[in-house]
Amino acid sequence: MSRIKVGIIGATGYTGSELVRILTNHPQVEITCITSESHTGKTFDEIHPAFRRICETKLIAAEEAYELDLDIVFLALPHGVSMQYASRFDLDKTKVIDLSADFRFNDLKLYERWYRKHKSGELMQRSVYGMPEIFREAIKNASLIGNPGCFPTATLLAMLPVLREGWVDPNEVVIADAKSGTTGAGVKPSAVTHYSTQFGNFFPYKTGHHRHQPEISHIAERGFNTQSKVIFTPHLLPTDRGILSSVYLKLNHGSSQKQLQQLYHDFYKNEPFVRVLKAEPKIKEVRGSNYADVFPFYHQETGYMQAACAIDNLVKGASGAAVQNMNLMLGFEETAGLHINPLMP
Amino acid sequence: MSRIKVGIIGATGYTGSELVRILTNHPQVEITCITSESHTGKTFDEIHPAFRRICETKLIAAEEAYELDLDIVFLALPHGVSMQYASRFDLDKTKVIDLSADFRFNDLKLYERWYRKHKSGELMQRSVYGMPEIFREAIKNASLIGNPGCFPTATLLAMLPVLREGWVDPNEVVIADAKSGTTGAGVKPSAVTHYSTQFGNFFPYKTGHHRHQPEISHIAERGFNTQSKVIFTPHLLPTDRGILSSVYLKLNHGSSQKQLQQLYHDFYKNEPFVRVLKAEPKIKEVRGSNYADVFPFYHQETGYMQAACAIDNLVKGASGAAVQNMNLMLGFEETAGLHINPLMP
Amino acid sequence: MSRIKVGIIGATGYTGSELVRILTNHPQVEITCITSESHTGKTFDEIHPAFRRICETKLIAAEEAYELDLDIVFLALPHGVSMQYASRFDLDKTKVIDLSADFRFNDLKLYERWYRKHKSGELMQRSVYGMPEIFREAIKNASLIGNPGCFPTATLLAMLPVLREGWVDPNEVVIADAKSGTTGAGVKPSAVTHYSTQFGNFFPYKTGHHRHQPEISHIAERGFNTQSKVIFTPHLLPTDRGILSSVYLKLNHGSSQKQLQQLYHDFYKNEPFVRVLKAEPKIKEVRGSNYADVFPFYHQETGYMQAACAIDNLVKGASGAAVQNMNLMLGFEETAGLHINPLMP
Amino acid sequence: MSRIKVGIIGATGYTGSELVRILTNHPQVEITCITSESHTGKTFDEIHPAFRRICETKLIAAEEAYELDLDIVFLALPHGVSMQYASRFDLDKTKVIDLSADFRFNDLKLYERWYRKHKSGELMQRSVYGMPEIFREAIKNASLIGNPGCFPTATLLAMLPVLREGWVDPNEVVIADAKSGTTGAGVKPSAVTHYSTQFGNFFPYKTGHHRHQPEISHIAERGFNTQSKVIFTPHLLPTDRGILSSVYLKLNHGSSQKQLQQLYHDFYKNEPFVRVLKAEPKIKEVRGSNYADVFPFYHQETGYMQAACAIDNLVKGASGAAVQNMNLMLGFEETAGLHINPLMP
Repeated sequence: MSRIKVGIIGATGYTGSELVRILTNHPQVEITCITSESHTGKTFDEIHPAFRRICETKLIAAEEAYELDLDIVFLALPHGVSMQYASRFDLDKTKVIDLSADFRFNDLKLYERWYRKHKSGELMQRSVYGMPEIFREAIKNASLIGNPGCFPTATLLAMLPVLREGWVDPNEVVIADAKSGTTGAGVKPSAVTHYSTQFGNFFPYKTGHHRHQPEISHIAERGFNTQSKVIFTPHLLPTDRGILSSVYLKLNHGSSQKQLQQLYHDFYKNEPFVRVLKAEPKIKEVRGSNYADVFPFYHQETGYMQAACAIDNLVKGASGAAVQNMNLMLGFEETAGLHINPLMP
Repeated sequence: MSRIKVGIIGATGYTGSELVRILTNHPQVEITCITSESHTGKTFDEIHPAFRRICETKLIAAEEAYELDLDIVFLALPHGVSMQYASRFDLDKTKVIDLSADFRFNDLKLYERWYRKHKSGELMQRSVYGMPEIFREAIKNASLIGNPGCFPTATLLAMLPVLREGWVDPNEVVIADAKSGTTGAGVKPSAVTHYSTQFGNFFPYKTGHHRHQPEISHIAERGFNTQSKVIFTPHLLPTDRGILSSVYLKLNHGSSQKQLQQLYHDFYKNEPFVRVLKAEPKIKEVRGSNYADVFPFYHQETGYMQAACAIDNLVKGASGAAVQNMNLMLGFEETAGLHINPLMP
Repeated sequence: MSRIKVGIIGATGYTGSELVRILTNHPQVEITCITSESHTGKTFDEIHPAFRRICETKLIAAEEAYELDLDIVFLALPHGVSMQYASRFDLDKTKVIDLSADFRFNDLKLYERWYRKHKSGELMQRSVYGMPEIFREAIKNASLIGNPGCFPTATLLAMLPVLREGWVDPNEVVIADAKSGTTGAGVKPSAVTHYSTQFGNFFPYKTGHHRHQPEISHIAERGFNTQSKVIFTPHLLPTDRGILSSVYLKLNHGSSQKQLQQLYHDFYKNEPFVRVLKAEPKIKEVRGSNYADVFPFYHQETGYMQAACAIDNLVKGASGAAVQNMNLMLGFEETAGLHINPLMP
Repeated sequence: MSRIKVGIIGATGYTGSELVRILTNHPQVEITCITSESHTGKTFDEIHPAFRRICETKLIAAEEAYELDLDIVFLALPHGVSMQYASRFDLDKTKVIDLSADFRFNDLKLYERWYRKHKSGELMQRSVYGMPEIFREAIKNASLIGNPGCFPTATLLAMLPVLREGWVDPNEVVIADAKSGTTGAGVKPSAVTHYSTQFGNFFPYKTGHHRHQPEISHIAERGFNTQSKVIFTPHLLPTDRGILSSVYLKLNHGSSQKQLQQLYHDFYKNEPFVRVLKAEPKIKEVRGSNYADVFPFYHQETGYMQAACAIDNLVKGASGAAVQNMNLMLGFEETAGLHINPLMP
């Protein structure tokens, strides 16, 4: 069986190397090319020495990739850069999965308010938000995917069942208190992610103005017509991988722990990568894997519920979800290449 | 000048060793005795080798301590044990600061619902909750202090100004999403705090039923007559020291970031250990010190505010606060012995 | 194709769960049974929640496993316990790979000096030391494998090329300064591996009397007739996984960096899991994988060489090597099931 | 009593902030100025927010510091920069303690081989190596101190007793295998000290060519006329603070554990900051303090000894030693300002 030809545009970042980690073990694809503008001519393992013997592909310029008749490409590029590369591919021939924020919105104004001027705004309308738990059928037919942000993935998965059921009290605020490992901040060294600084540290950041807040609200509205206001506060954990999002919201009618647990169980029972637990999820129990672990809890006294969702931000929160989307787009088994067990302990 | 005679009852736990860390540098006290039932006869540094040359005091049984005419004792004992030791001291001669939960409540029923049968219930009525930021004057005259819990300290300090001003909407729920390092779980090894398990890990625990929730509500009511329901969720951080509590609540009238910042600044301006920041606090910036760093933030769109407070759980959250209380009770400079700078980086 | 029937004896420890992590993705085996005496009747994922949906096998008592016509079993048991289980299997029908130290020696007296009375001493003589880089052919024909210790694996791989060539000066001492993550200490909580203690900590232990020293010397002699004395000092790293062993030794003739690098390259060029580097290895670059990364360095001025070897102690240092041995014993592709990429970052 | 006027030249690095952490609690000095060329005009706590309320001194340019009649200055500057500032002070009026390598050698050629062209070579001859355990009397009379490197401090303290006694076999190589936390790499972010990279990582670096090797050899020769070759290999620990150096060497005559322990005990018995242990030292047991913990071990079978020494690299390995030197130079109690207890746990 001939393998599907895959391109990875952008080799130096974590989403790029994570795609290589996953795709080198995918039974139906071959990595035809990996691009890098800054490291053209070097091999992938020169940039990422952990991949010696695993991926020694020579890095090419993106310009060359356009000529390679790729079946599908992943854009592992910064926000604002992806939009420029996406338009260079003929979407009728080469499907595109973008891991930046550039195609997560289909509201140009909203995107431009939070990010920047969009140079391929017209493509936005063709894009599908790559969260199979909401948009699976659309993803199957899509040629351009806006792969979800890591925090929105964990936060939305924590509340999808009650969003879909319309149980969320629209007059009340949803509180999302989210915590991420440092890989979410990317590969580029900075004072905040300096080891000596972050070791033993923990803190909230961008209180009141993180760009994943509008993404969460936008998708909640797009998927379920939910109008609730969301207060979203990210925190930085002293670990490399993992997100845990704790979501608090008021239900619009009384419920019970049993009913809530049942709702979550039923909603997710056919999802290959969402595990509904009866106890709190732990980020290490999904480390390196594509699982999302979710635990809902009902507060009898106040009518509030809370739910916690744990994911590996680089897998289910980025490159794993991207491969899951690829599988859907290409008609593969949805779990192909994603049988990666959590690295625990 | 003769030094005050201090006893530390309970040598093996972290609050005990932390008291030694602080008090060996206190200019006005001497550690007259340290007790341990399980290690009687050994020296303190045999149990805590970091203290070689610093504290080589021989450990005695508590029974011997009663005879030593101590001016003040710290009970660094588990919940349920402290209550038995407290009643053995003559409070008119020997002041008692209890670091367990046994004297944090003055409501016997509430204590017994969450903890256990209280064996010294009558003493409860003489106890003062040892948070100087609320009860400074009472502490000065107290002979028995219930030293605050670590999570309640961080959570209450995050919202004292709006509690006192009566700005909290009583019909809305207060959400406290708190995160602690593992020293909060004590010195005893367990599966949860096993290094191989907790390394790189993070998770919520005791969702909906942690015993610091009633402590927070009880003190909010006792200090400020606040009736708000509190949802409190602790999480375990992969670090040794530090708590950050993120509190979300609805104000009962409109405000602004400037007004809120001013309120916090004014409220805390004479507090020696509370620093009101204009940016998010970080747990490492208070590591090893008695500081509490607080940052309030107002959400214009929803009328909610949130505040984050960072402390070292073993210092401001336990033994440092205990020494601060001792200073007040004995008429010392409130900061004596507590000029410990944060260990950053 | 029917799959080989595999049993895992001992479910609670890290080598057991790591075998499950690997074998659930092995294309030619099925895990027929997992045993546990203390948790009989529970499912594997109840003990190891990270494995929900991945391995929900019900745990049985070892007694039942003897009846299951297993093709091969892994003994993931403590030293001293394995010896008792090994003799219960008919080695002509069921091959045995023991992950304890019980069958690493073929010198009864040496074993008993360092460990304890051996109850299956006669089996020792049938056992092969499971390091393919030394004993590959013998492993292929073995029915009982003593799977190497984690420190000996890293330490021996650092010096195999010069051992085989006879370049080690027999009159000089070999210094092996080794560092391990805490998973090497096992799943059982203790004061040493308590998170609050070990966080930010690092120290040597068992100076002069760790049991991996005689294992290293024994195998060096058994494989290469090397008589050199070895000083071996382990240290405990504040991480979960990973061993780095730094070995220093005097060569018996002059050499050069180029010659040494060439020797290592040639020696390991056909080894599927040993990567000879031109720079220092890092434990994170092998995390979760079966790779051993080795870097030799020649000191011109003194005639000494040093070499560093990095492995994941639970994979190449335990369960990964065990699966590699299984592949050899059963005639599978040596790398089957072991295409696990390092989890970096 | 009027306080001594101290200047700190260089505010942004870790040795600078650590000097502030220590000196703000020193009873006999005042920090008269702190300089920064890049942050002139800002306050110290703007650069180091942990120091809010502790040190809010406005940073000035070094040029202004020359006019302030300082009694003593600390140069907390990079190698190559210090040499330029040192010569601007009149050493007869203002004593200088340099924390860079610029005045650690009194051999110009050796310095220039390993570092760079020296611009104040003549001053080298006036400098004293600031290790009180070797050069206490010279330090008392010095006006210019070359404060020791962090690795040389731990490595030399591990072997001073046998160096002084002349017990080291000069024909054999000394192996020093040293491990440091990331603060040793300074405040500037880099790929190596990026949190996502270094978390869970560990590795050797600069094998065979780290500049602390010649410093160790130079001081061993200068202090004790020792000619032994030293192989020094640093490793990077995944922690912020702490160095442990493991030193292996052959003695030139037979000994015993008891004799060796006695030698170390006697040698260090009057040293205020060196603690000779009967078990392995741990870096966390000296965290934040000026202690060096040392444990010697004799290998009967081979005539080798090994010793491990643990220090906090920023305290005894840098700023704490600098303050100890200051105390000696100014005739203060040697321990003044250095009663900082280890932060354990």
